[in-house]
Amino acid sequence: MGILGKSEILKLQREFRIIHPFKEQLLDGDGYILTVKDNVVLNYLEHKNLISKEIIMLPTNIIAHLTAKSRFGRLGLSFLNAAKVHSGFIGRLALELVNLNNSRKPITIKRGEPLMHIEFIRREGEPSPYMGEYLFQYMTDEEVALYLDLINKKFPNLYPPGFLEKKAKNRILISEI
Amino acid sequence: MGILGKSEILKLQREFRIIHPFKEQLLDGDGYILTVKDNVVLNYLEHKNLISKEIIMLPTNIIAHLTAKSRFGRLGLSFLNAAKVHSGFIGRLALELVNLNNSRKPITIKRGEPLMHIEFIRREGEPSPYMGEYLFQYMTDEEVALYLDLINKKFPNLYPPGFLEKKAKNRILISEI
Amino acid sequence: MGILGKSEILKLQREFRIIHPFKEQLLDGDGYILTVKDNVVLNYLEHKNLISKEIIMLPTNIIAHLTAKSRFGRLGLSFLNAAKVHSGFIGRLALELVNLNNSRKPITIKRGEPLMHIEFIRREGEPSPYMGEYLFQYMTDEEVALYLDLINKKFPNLYPPGFLEKKAKNRILISEI
Repeated sequence: MGILGKSEILKLQREFRIIHPFKEQLLDGDGYILTVKDNVVLNYLEHKNLISKEIIMLPTNIIAHLTAKSRFGRLGLSFLNAAKVHSGFIGRLALELVNLNNSRKPITIKRGEPLMHIEFIRREGEPSPYMGEYLFQYMTDEEVALYLDLINKKFPNLYPPGFLEKKAKNRILISEI
Repeated sequence: MGILGKSEILKLQREFRIIHPFKEQLLDGDGYILTVKDNVVLNYLEHKNLISKEIIMLPTNIIAHLTAKSRFGRLGLSFLNAAKVHSGFIGRLALELVNLNNSRKPITIKRGEPLMHIEFIRREGEPSPYMGEYLFQYMTDEEVALYLDLINKKFPNLYPPGFLEKKAKNRILISEI
Repeated sequence: MGILGKSEILKLQREFRIIHPFKEQLLDGDGYILTVKDNVVLNYLEHKNLISKEIIMLPTNIIAHLTAKSRFGRLGLSFLNAAKVHSGFIGRLALELVNLNNSRKPITIKRGEPLMHIEFIRREGEPSPYMGEYLFQYMTDEEVALYLDLINKKFPNLYPPGFLEKKAKNRILISEI
């Protein structure tokens, strides 16, 4: 019990599609490696919120934590905060990164390049899912429909009627970044 | 078993008063949101140790971890280190924050404003509580008396006789910040 | 189940030599305090990868996380990323630190001085040990021989034949820092 290994992540992936899109080669033994949607350049001391290419969907008994891959850490890319994902969250992640490169040079992160570890951790107690303003953020209509369908099947009585549909309608869109 | 959800935090709160003062609306589903005692302004690249408004008291089988709320992360407020609280700790927390704001502007944190996530995690094995120099830090005489009474009732044989009273007498005071 | 306390760390230490060299006084109740091999000075805004004095060896069901000690945090020493160690890792750790000191002064870390908390956490699921390029990094020939022997005894069928020996031969050496 604690942090989920590869075999447990694969079980959740099959049941809940916790990472989407999902590539098996981005699984590491203790977690998954997130990537970004678009090429990004960070200048020295600049910080930016990068949007993960992947949607993360956490069941009510799972929490996720993020840490940057050491390859980028060695370049001086530092992870600000918000390094956790709430149980019940569904959406793309905003990754807050800052460039503290020693030579004061820009750091480039390419679309699809392995960037950020995400690890999944068991949570104890009754469900208390995320119901905040970032639910469904940066998801397309098709992706929202896919996950609404999944939630309605897997957790039919978790939310008040119409709650998720309203959140989906008012979600933060890619164009608002 | 792992990170405690809201229902489990409420159980600990009722038994051990793990957060004090405690407001139910500052519970999030997977943790609690700490605030600071006083308004603080951090200039660009300045780092300060902020004192939590709340006292944290951890039973011997619980550890806590801290992460800054994403709202502040998006402003460029970064959490230095010391992001964990030892089992058995009792006292206010020193939150080490640095301003890495992109526009090099000051960041203001207001008294009582939701600032920092704290999450509570199960710990395995025999008790080995915190006995260091920060025990009871920044607590008033009344608060110390409240927790000494609680410890004596809940963990009567955990510490050597007189140990806690001596620590309380030599604790770090607010005026020493 | 969750984070390992002192009694559980001692059990792992006796069975797997998870920390080497190991000093009982560097155990804290919820983890261990790592040190560095050599004296280091970090100038303001400089970041460096420091090499831990200690070798860390994680069994396949354990993950480790790192956080800097608050004494250094108070000086403005900040931990970049890579704050986790993969299950099955064997080697010295590269600790990515940056100096964000308020007075823009250098920070000195002395050989053997308590620097970095490491905590050990249970992992669920089938073994999926680290097999990457940092295996056995910064270890001497004698140390590699010691751990190869231990792995062959404790986990005789975990790796493909010859895999570890090849990794050991191609490991990153101290002289490559």
